[in-house]
Amino acid sequence: MHSVIDLLKSHRSIRKFTDQPVTQALFADLVAAGQAAATSSFLQGSTIIRVTDSAKRAKIAELAGNQKYVETAAEFMVFCADLKRPGNYCRLYGKEFEGDYTEHFIIATVDVALMAQSMVTAAESAGLGICYIGGIRNNPAEVSELLELPRGVYPVFGLCLGYPDQDPEIKPRLPASVIVKENVYDESGDAETIAAYDETVREYYQTRTGGGHGISWSEQVATLLSEKARPHMRDFLASQGFTFK
Amino acid sequence: MHSVIDLLKSHRSIRKFTDQPVTQALFADLVAAGQAAATSSFLQGSTIIRVTDSAKRAKIAELAGNQKYVETAAEFMVFCADLKRPGNYCRLYGKEFEGDYTEHFIIATVDVALMAQSMVTAAESAGLGICYIGGIRNNPAEVSELLELPRGVYPVFGLCLGYPDQDPEIKPRLPASVIVKENVYDESGDAETIAAYDETVREYYQTRTGGGHGISWSEQVATLLSEKARPHMRDFLASQGFTFK
Repeated sequence: MHSVIDLLKSHRSIRKFTDQPVTQALFADLVAAGQAAATSSFLQGSTIIRVTDSAKRAKIAELAGNQKYVETAAEFMVFCADLKRPGNYCRLYGKEFEGDYTEHFIIATVDVALMAQSMVTAAESAGLGICYIGGIRNNPAEVSELLELPRGVYPVFGLCLGYPDQDPEIKPRLPASVIVKENVYDESGDAETIAAYDETVREYYQTRTGGGHGISWSEQVATLLSEKARPHMRDFLASQGFTFK
Repeated sequence: MHSVIDLLKSHRSIRKFTDQPVTQALFADLVAAGQAAATSSFLQGSTIIRVTDSAKRAKIAELAGNQKYVETAAEFMVFCADLKRPGNYCRLYGKEFEGDYTEHFIIATVDVALMAQSMVTAAESAGLGICYIGGIRNNPAEVSELLELPRGVYPVFGLCLGYPDQDPEIKPRLPASVIVKENVYDESGDAETIAAYDETVREYYQTRTGGGHGISWSEQVATLLSEKARPHMRDFLASQGFTFK
């Protein structure tokens, strides 16, 4: 079944979708595929809010930074880390809830990501295209209010799903020699490898359909890490009960 | 290519492996499949430490709570969230490093999980079995020292990979009706559904190969969330530069 590896390697985000809906049967199958992913300590700390209400979709598209495809994709979901569901049973069984440790945050966040990624692979195997929407964390409080997310639940990312109406190129990744290290973290040679990769990325942006800015990988990520990224997140998470104890 | 969905649905953790090694070519293919997963803002915030040194393996197996399969699996890797690699370029380009926000932690952690899960699917499609090792967070400082992880890098989880020498049952998941909600977070009916599911889980533990404890899902997760889980994580992360600003 080596075609699965080819499928995975062929991933690219899709931001333009046809009108074709996703059938209920396929959607259910995608959820089942996602749920089968590993879950830490059997927590199953994920909840998917499937947004079918078009007014809510439009509002989220706006809140996420005017990402129109949130409105136009056949399906749009918000993937939430959910410690409320298991936490309910602390109360029921007379145990004190202590689920506000950093570790619980990691467990639930990783659970969500593993589930989503399996769902994505399932979707792509069925001919669908996807786009993760980290932009919902631009305004997480508003998104949470719109979806009535209670304390103990936080929106990690959104996901657009639909049949592709575009065929973008695959974005080149860092050479594996930079990503995979043996026994110890050793950066020897990485700077040279990344310098060559930076040129590949520049070229990708310059030649891809629609043109582009020609900015290298290192320039992009240096900018990302020199910004106070979404500085509201800590307080927002605290308000939802994730206090990083 | 509906078999991909069947493959995903058939996941279960493998904790007993044959001696058969993973070829270099296959390993490289698995990494490529993992790297092709989506990455937030193109960060590529993941580093894999492939642990081939048997003394290090033995030590990590012990640190992770005596998980022998960390030693015996054909491959064992530690998946790290890596903000050092991109952070290097802040310095190089004369930008101030601000990559210690909660948001950066989320981006990097999700990046790692998406990459790992694609690698897992690739591995399973090639007949390999896997087991995530959250236990490396029992002693993250010791694991980090052993792997010489610098500031800006933290070990999210381990992953065992190898050809299965066991055939465990698939662990039943929560009914999809509990996981997927439409437009708003609404728990109506969930308690009844979970009560029935709890019985399924009890039965799974009672009848599975090797026997089991017969504890329901809700009992397990209530215990998990009533424990001060890995309370060292916050300070450990701070020492690695993840300060949740």
